[in-house]
Amino acid sequence: MAKEYLRAVPLKDVEVSDRFWAPRLERLRDITIPHLFNMLEKHGYFNNFKLARDKAREGYSGTFWMDSDLYKVIEASAYVLAKHPDPALEKQVDEVISLIASAQMPDGYLNTYFQVVEPERRWTNLRDCHELYCAGHLIEAAVAYYEATGKRNLLDVAIRFADHIDSIFGEGKRLGYPGHPEIELALVKLWKVTGEKRYLDLARFFILKRGTKFFAQEHNIPPEEYDGTTLQDNVPIKEQKEIVGHAVRALYLMAGATDIGRESGDEELLQMVQRVWRNATERRMFITGGMGSSSHNEGFTRDYDLPNLTAYQETCASCAVVFWAHRLALLYGDAKYVDVLERALYNGALAGISLKGDRFFYVNPLESKGGYKREEWFGCACCPPNIARLLASLGNYIYAQSEDSIWVNLYVQGKANVELKGGKVNLELIGDYPWDGHILLSLHPSQPFEFSLYLRVPGWCKKAEVRINGKVQEKPSVEKGYILIKRTWKEGDKVELDLLMPVEKIVAHPEVKEDVGKIALQRGPLVYCFEEEDQHAPLQLIYLALDGEFKPKWESDLLGGVVVLEGEGLASDGVDWKDELYKPASIRVKKVKVRAIPYYAWDNREPRGMKVWMPLYPQAMWE
Amino acid sequence: MAKEYLRAVPLKDVEVSDRFWAPRLERLRDITIPHLFNMLEKHGYFNNFKLARDKAREGYSGTFWMDSDLYKVIEASAYVLAKHPDPALEKQVDEVISLIASAQMPDGYLNTYFQVVEPERRWTNLRDCHELYCAGHLIEAAVAYYEATGKRNLLDVAIRFADHIDSIFGEGKRLGYPGHPEIELALVKLWKVTGEKRYLDLARFFILKRGTKFFAQEHNIPPEEYDGTTLQDNVPIKEQKEIVGHAVRALYLMAGATDIGRESGDEELLQMVQRVWRNATERRMFITGGMGSSSHNEGFTRDYDLPNLTAYQETCASCAVVFWAHRLALLYGDAKYVDVLERALYNGALAGISLKGDRFFYVNPLESKGGYKREEWFGCACCPPNIARLLASLGNYIYAQSEDSIWVNLYVQGKANVELKGGKVNLELIGDYPWDGHILLSLHPSQPFEFSLYLRVPGWCKKAEVRINGKVQEKPSVEKGYILIKRTWKEGDKVELDLLMPVEKIVAHPEVKEDVGKIALQRGPLVYCFEEEDQHAPLQLIYLALDGEFKPKWESDLLGGVVVLEGEGLASDGVDWKDELYKPASIRVKKVKVRAIPYYAWDNREPRGMKVWMPLYPQAMWE
Repeated sequence: MAKEYLRAVPLKDVEVSDRFWAPRLERLRDITIPHLFNMLEKHGYFNNFKLARDKAREGYSGTFWMDSDLYKVIEASAYVLAKHPDPALEKQVDEVISLIASAQMPDGYLNTYFQVVEPERRWTNLRDCHELYCAGHLIEAAVAYYEATGKRNLLDVAIRFADHIDSIFGEGKRLGYPGHPEIELALVKLWKVTGEKRYLDLARFFILKRGTKFFAQEHNIPPEEYDGTTLQDNVPIKEQKEIVGHAVRALYLMAGATDIGRESGDEELLQMVQRVWRNATERRMFITGGMGSSSHNEGFTRDYDLPNLTAYQETCASCAVVFWAHRLALLYGDAKYVDVLERALYNGALAGISLKGDRFFYVNPLESKGGYKREEWFGCACCPPNIARLLASLGNYIYAQSEDSIWVNLYVQGKANVELKGGKVNLELIGDYPWDGHILLSLHPSQPFEFSLYLRVPGWCKKAEVRINGKVQEKPSVEKGYILIKRTWKEGDKVELDLLMPVEKIVAHPEVKEDVGKIALQRGPLVYCFEEEDQHAPLQLIYLALDGEFKPKWESDLLGGVVVLEGEGLASDGVDWKDELYKPASIRVKKVKVRAIPYYAWDNREPRGMKVWMPLYPQAMWE
Repeated sequence: MAKEYLRAVPLKDVEVSDRFWAPRLERLRDITIPHLFNMLEKHGYFNNFKLARDKAREGYSGTFWMDSDLYKVIEASAYVLAKHPDPALEKQVDEVISLIASAQMPDGYLNTYFQVVEPERRWTNLRDCHELYCAGHLIEAAVAYYEATGKRNLLDVAIRFADHIDSIFGEGKRLGYPGHPEIELALVKLWKVTGEKRYLDLARFFILKRGTKFFAQEHNIPPEEYDGTTLQDNVPIKEQKEIVGHAVRALYLMAGATDIGRESGDEELLQMVQRVWRNATERRMFITGGMGSSSHNEGFTRDYDLPNLTAYQETCASCAVVFWAHRLALLYGDAKYVDVLERALYNGALAGISLKGDRFFYVNPLESKGGYKREEWFGCACCPPNIARLLASLGNYIYAQSEDSIWVNLYVQGKANVELKGGKVNLELIGDYPWDGHILLSLHPSQPFEFSLYLRVPGWCKKAEVRINGKVQEKPSVEKGYILIKRTWKEGDKVELDLLMPVEKIVAHPEVKEDVGKIALQRGPLVYCFEEEDQHAPLQLIYLALDGEFKPKWESDLLGGVVVLEGEGLASDGVDWKDELYKPASIRVKKVKVRAIPYYAWDNREPRGMKVWMPLYPQAMWE
């Protein structure tokens, strides 16, 4: 490492106590985690491990990547346990870990599908069969559980499997890389927790070999007939110019490449990452921060192709945007990455789980004609445990630090303990974000000492005011999107930040043909949507006016408490075109009260119509 | 004939004296006709006939349908001569006719291309080689010249050729029909002028056989590989549901089918014609009345595919719309057909010729980014003589009659002599149409007698008032779009008609994706366009407002005298999007005076940008 990068202030040192996230984390513990364990039981996940343990050859249930879902539930549980000791949950997890360990083969191999169904075909189809993907989730769960509890039970299983994989793949060994990236991220974590550089080297191998068209070789496809785009195997990775193919795979791959670029100082790799990031966020991201335009490839299509009704925006992809953006934010200390992280977290990702915590979206459209709703589980159940592990690890995303600086990235009320070179700092953040833009930060250093405090000015915020101990800072220093306050801090110092948070009418780039003539509402980090239920006219007949005013209003009894946006729209009578091809424009609209709710909260009532992007009058005549 | 249909009051009995058409007809005589003869000379048309006469086998110039252009120039000249005796022109035409006659073969065959270039291949490729098409134009020219001058010189040539064709094709003879319909219309005219029913039968044969996939047979194409859509040979003609393929061919075919349906009382054929008419005018017609969406097939594509910049709208197709609509108007006595006729005549067709009369459009887009302009001639020169023959025959389209009724279809100032069963009527029409909606009609019957007068209420007119000898008719009888006045008319009776003619903002059916969020301006029968030259901001940055007011203003020195429409638009600063994918809607538009001119008059100054369909604000933000 050539220089000191930022690192996250870890989960265990951060408290969350606001009225937005704290109840969500509580429901995550009380409802979501038990629900996930129930689903694992109900759908045969544990049984698969028992079959593998018993060397059975029949009875396997589900897809061949089933193990990964279970590992992700363990990982989510680990993040919960990191902050909230819960002997019953810990016992439950330990039992599952014992089961997992009992299924591991003497050589370290562990994959219940291959052990039960196709033992002779291990490592023969990296492209399709998710062995390395499942291994990655095992490792991530193991690291999380070790960090949360100090227990090595799952970590040792993961290390044995990682060593087995390392004995097979790598320089001078077999060529290969996963059809679904994930293990790259996991191996970097395993390296950090064990200090064993082989894991980092193996991760780098998987990343840097990508695009050498190994999958064509693995499947005997003539090069001229091979198009590896869906699996990001189309060009050598450093030559990638756009984000392509399956969205979750592409985003995990880029997160992994960011890790490898950071840890090995590979500037060429990082240039590729930044190029692809720009393409992803400037051309291929939904306003909700999610990605993946088409169900056809569960992924990317072409620049500015961002459909609403058929948006794929898999919940896992929104999680992956957070994972990748977080790595870039720590690497470059630039708030623009946190802007995307926040957008994906509060909108695309958060919509993936119901308010109650036991129903999930796999696909997150930006428009519904009604009838589309969250499910308790899926045949391909990657999303429910993914959103669970993301939310359970929320604490990781709030602060970052270096030796002598603290970055405040997300304005989540709570506390944090940060250890700097010059001393310890206890931070207390009070605020009602995302509903309100007023933030109060109290600092309690162990003794007065100098350090830098970086306060993120969100990209959505046009005007921010900062006061130190009540005194307005007229022209605060701003660096990479953060207000920088470098001073000797002393006990009880107070920093107030006012982020102006008006309702914004957002337009999309004109090349986004789906959204031409439409606006979306955003306030603070929250993207809003219009649900049929809240309107006084059929949703498809409602239009907004560009100069229409929207006012925020707190509704404590609605959807767990939300700020709704209230305003006036126009409802057309629904023009009857009959057979005319051309006719004089007739204006037949009436004013109608309209109300928008945060996108994350949709489909928590009857699954009726929903729209994020609303047409502007005078289009009223055409629909 | 089962019933008496309407017939046109013929050209020779109609005078045109208004300030809109009269100067155009004068320029047609003084400039266009001489220009056309010059072009024929310059491009070797006469020489081709000399080569054929001399039985030469070398030296032919141009396409294989060259003869037809020359015939159409004769036809246009004939219409001119019908109203304006001109010994010099008549002499010139007679000389050309002598040349034509000298080239005719002893068996009646006459086609300079085949005679000079491929004599052995006569009638071997009806699909591509236009022999029947050229014959059709010969016949139409011959009939017109005979009717104008009483001379049989060209008629006898045409009859000999028609007899030759009749000896080859027909029931019990050879199967065949033209790749490019046209002869069907001509043979019906020849039947009417000669009384020889064989010509009608042959026309019916060509029409009714169409769609039997003769072209597949002619070119040895296996049926399963044959798609005859471009040439309307895809299904038996009575099964046609939509207007398909090459636009001019499709429209000539439908005009021919209308003739045959009318003359043979074939209701099944007429039902097809009406079905296809509805498809054509309700789904596939430009606002300017022209047709043909794509240059690819010079024709139709799919419903509501009506592009602006790439509109094909061949001038010949607009002429063909007039031909077909006129036949339907006479067949059904319904003003709705005249609405389309008028739309095509005053807009799509009239745009095909420059104001001066010596430059022509082949393709008529509804939008130009600049640089597109009329030409003096074309390698495929079908359009210049077609628009010339249409305009020269304008008188044919103004009135229709039956035994006891007169229909006023176009409000063109002038006079007409109509012979009814009960007596003769001299009509005088005074008005400033299309600039003004006030019409004064004076009737001069040979003696007082009863007949019906049908006054068309144009489809564009929302409010019409009629007065008889100064007395307002409170609730006039209306039949098929005409105000019907049945009474005993006497010398000097006056009928005044006031057609309310406001500026209308027209929208297109929402399925016309090209025009969503746009409006076009129309006043009376004229569709307007915006030329860059008249604006105070770059055309591509100008938007109209739905509630913006436009006022008509007569400009005598502009474009030969036009009513322009003046109003206020909005010009955007041209939003710079840089790299943002989403951003708050910023309104940066300023009001700007805008001015529209009639579409027909565009490109008579510098060939700069032009738009018929203008985007509405608030789209301003997106472009």
